[in-house]
Amino acid sequence: MRPAPHPVVVAAEIGSTAPGSTVAIRGHVHRRRELSRVAFLVVRDRSGLVQVVLEPEDGSGALPPEETPVRITGTVSANPKAPGGREIVRPRITLLGDPAATSPFELWRPELTASLPARLDHAALSWRHPVQRARWRLAAASMRGFRAALDADGFTEIATPKLVGAATESGAEVFRVDYFGQPAYLAQSPQLYKQQLVGVFERVYEVGPVFRAEPHDTARHLAQYTSLDVELGFIEDHRDVLAVLTNVLHRMLETLREDAAPELDLLQVELPSIPAAVPVVHFAHARELLGAPPDLPDLSPEQERALGRWARAEHGSDVLAVEAYPLRTRPFYTHPWTREPTPGGPYSNSFDLLFRGVELVTGGQRLHRHGDYLAALAERGIDAAEHADYLRTVEGGMPPHGGFAIGLERWVSRLIGMGNVREVTLFPRDLHRLRP
Amino acid sequence: MRPAPHPVVVAAEIGSTAPGSTVAIRGHVHRRRELSRVAFLVVRDRSGLVQVVLEPEDGSGALPPEETPVRITGTVSANPKAPGGREIVRPRITLLGDPAATSPFELWRPELTASLPARLDHAALSWRHPVQRARWRLAAASMRGFRAALDADGFTEIATPKLVGAATESGAEVFRVDYFGQPAYLAQSPQLYKQQLVGVFERVYEVGPVFRAEPHDTARHLAQYTSLDVELGFIEDHRDVLAVLTNVLHRMLETLREDAAPELDLLQVELPSIPAAVPVVHFAHARELLGAPPDLPDLSPEQERALGRWARAEHGSDVLAVEAYPLRTRPFYTHPWTREPTPGGPYSNSFDLLFRGVELVTGGQRLHRHGDYLAALAERGIDAAEHADYLRTVEGGMPPHGGFAIGLERWVSRLIGMGNVREVTLFPRDLHRLRP
Repeated sequence: MRPAPHPVVVAAEIGSTAPGSTVAIRGHVHRRRELSRVAFLVVRDRSGLVQVVLEPEDGSGALPPEETPVRITGTVSANPKAPGGREIVRPRITLLGDPAATSPFELWRPELTASLPARLDHAALSWRHPVQRARWRLAAASMRGFRAALDADGFTEIATPKLVGAATESGAEVFRVDYFGQPAYLAQSPQLYKQQLVGVFERVYEVGPVFRAEPHDTARHLAQYTSLDVELGFIEDHRDVLAVLTNVLHRMLETLREDAAPELDLLQVELPSIPAAVPVVHFAHARELLGAPPDLPDLSPEQERALGRWARAEHGSDVLAVEAYPLRTRPFYTHPWTREPTPGGPYSNSFDLLFRGVELVTGGQRLHRHGDYLAALAERGIDAAEHADYLRTVEGGMPPHGGFAIGLERWVSRLIGMGNVREVTLFPRDLHRLRP
Repeated sequence: MRPAPHPVVVAAEIGSTAPGSTVAIRGHVHRRRELSRVAFLVVRDRSGLVQVVLEPEDGSGALPPEETPVRITGTVSANPKAPGGREIVRPRITLLGDPAATSPFELWRPELTASLPARLDHAALSWRHPVQRARWRLAAASMRGFRAALDADGFTEIATPKLVGAATESGAEVFRVDYFGQPAYLAQSPQLYKQQLVGVFERVYEVGPVFRAEPHDTARHLAQYTSLDVELGFIEDHRDVLAVLTNVLHRMLETLREDAAPELDLLQVELPSIPAAVPVVHFAHARELLGAPPDLPDLSPEQERALGRWARAEHGSDVLAVEAYPLRTRPFYTHPWTREPTPGGPYSNSFDLLFRGVELVTGGQRLHRHGDYLAALAERGIDAAEHADYLRTVEGGMPPHGGFAIGLERWVSRLIGMGNVREVTLFPRDLHRLRP
């Protein structure tokens, strides 16, 4: 950048800038307040807010409207009542763009009171609110922590195709694409690709968009969301996968604490308690805890919430792994249960991680033998030809392996106690929303 | 993981393991060689290769075929001729999966000689070759370096929609999606979203897939590639953007040196020379250097190669920024040239970064005033209504801003001197290829 006439500082640095220094700050006008004798501008930059005081001798003229981009050059002055204990006095204000049109939101208020649909209609503006912005910063810090944990543990980041010739998980809920005149689909997950790449890199991860043509309007489903995917080879069973997940979650929390302390503070987030050993209940045991019939095949959201309360009460834990889901409720690539036999099966070497009573992660061990795949596909009536490339890789030699996927938006929404994933998605896509 | 009876080590650790130690390693059989009296197995894991020696007294029986997943428990022995100066003797071999079917490739040979189409048809197997695998590891390290540079500089990672209601860049070369019965498109870039988020976070980046319905078969285009996108506010002009890009490229090289030294070595990569101040030529000057007519609107691949040679000869640099592309050849959001007037314009505050003579990065300053947008759209005959959401954000107050996008696959292919981006894409997608 060209040398500025005065050092450019960001709002968060003002508190440690010596009174009397001349500095420049750049940001958007967050708020203007004109009192009878004195006027205040609050400027918002990427790091926070700075108060600017205009006395009559600083010149007159209308103050720029809220959200106008400005550069302010002035003198730092101590004021215990200002944010950071400092404010800027004797300012020179330069407009760096057009005066902003009136926002649909009063972004300077402590809370955005507009309805969710109104906020989503003008997402790029509503995200400017410090509270909104802080929410996404938790998402960004979480992705950073996720990668840091895996980079330190010998994992390789991958990038898999989002355009695929066959549906990944099931024929339903898939978006169709015109691919140079051929039918194609948007990938519902990197599942079969990340598994195949275990044969190459042994341990892989991907952070990327996945697509579900979710035909229902729910608070926890979107047509596109960010999936934090992991897969690793040479495991004993799904418990090894759960150990990696636990380590990843711990590092995500650590990164939030280290890199997002102001945001956690602003949002009054109490970070969850995730024990070193996450409590695990067998699906059969979960059924008993819920007083459910012995043929219950899967958990309803309400049952998940009940188990979440149980984990909190019984183990002081915000997370609970339910393992050994009935095999028939899991996808074809799921490995059958291999630990002690339990009545009411067949079960699988899989788990869901419930976070504060909501399914956050699905994981488990996958099949790794060709014959087992052929049997599993036949049993489900899936044509093996649909998965020919995948099966060829399995035939080419695959170790026991497994993995998991964390839904980023679910993680953040539960972290801050919002019921709707749209609250933490920059530009959500759903049945009714393809814009902005 | 369950405690193993012997410590599990990876191949790269064998060199520093004391001879006489008993260890377990897990990986794929990379090669088997049966001589008259002695047999060798080479095992490949995520970190490299280990040689295992079988004497007659280690028991007989057929050795598992190449690519079979195995666990080997044995004694570390010094052998200066073995990789890492160590080998494993007196092994116990456990198969961890099915014996592998014969691979279409002889993965144990120093080079994969199969044709590119053959390798792509069986991508998940051909990537197992150490040379292939090393190529992708350079991509992974590059992404890590990209993020590290930006994380350290106040940037926020974002995730933007890949399903959009209108084409981002132009109507051509866009994939159509059936979005719950409505027409939608796959995003050709995060361009308009990353710009809008500058108003929120000031500095943003995204690493993600972008989609181009590229109707031609070329060595440098794919239907899906990984774009490393950056956008930042409060700039003077495109030179500030170039400064961020330079810093990012330096950090990418540093990360390659630190994290991918064995891969650079295996591939015999000479890292490029990227000067602290990247050489910049004005488009008008580039025309002169090429002896091109003064109305040349854009550069051909051949002209880019010629400029690359010039930068190498004249500046000892593997990169060259060509700035001030004619305004009419750049997208509608491009900011006009604001430095010293130059005949032959109008020019733009934009640049392309040529890396070893190939366009690697496109960047520049964007318009930030509402009136300028309306004029630019009208001049190009684009209906402003198509960009209503974007224009509303601009009206809401935008600072001067700009950014760039690096094509990951192009970066890696030039780094290792491969002409075709398919060589460095895990599962490439093009006009003829939707699988594997």
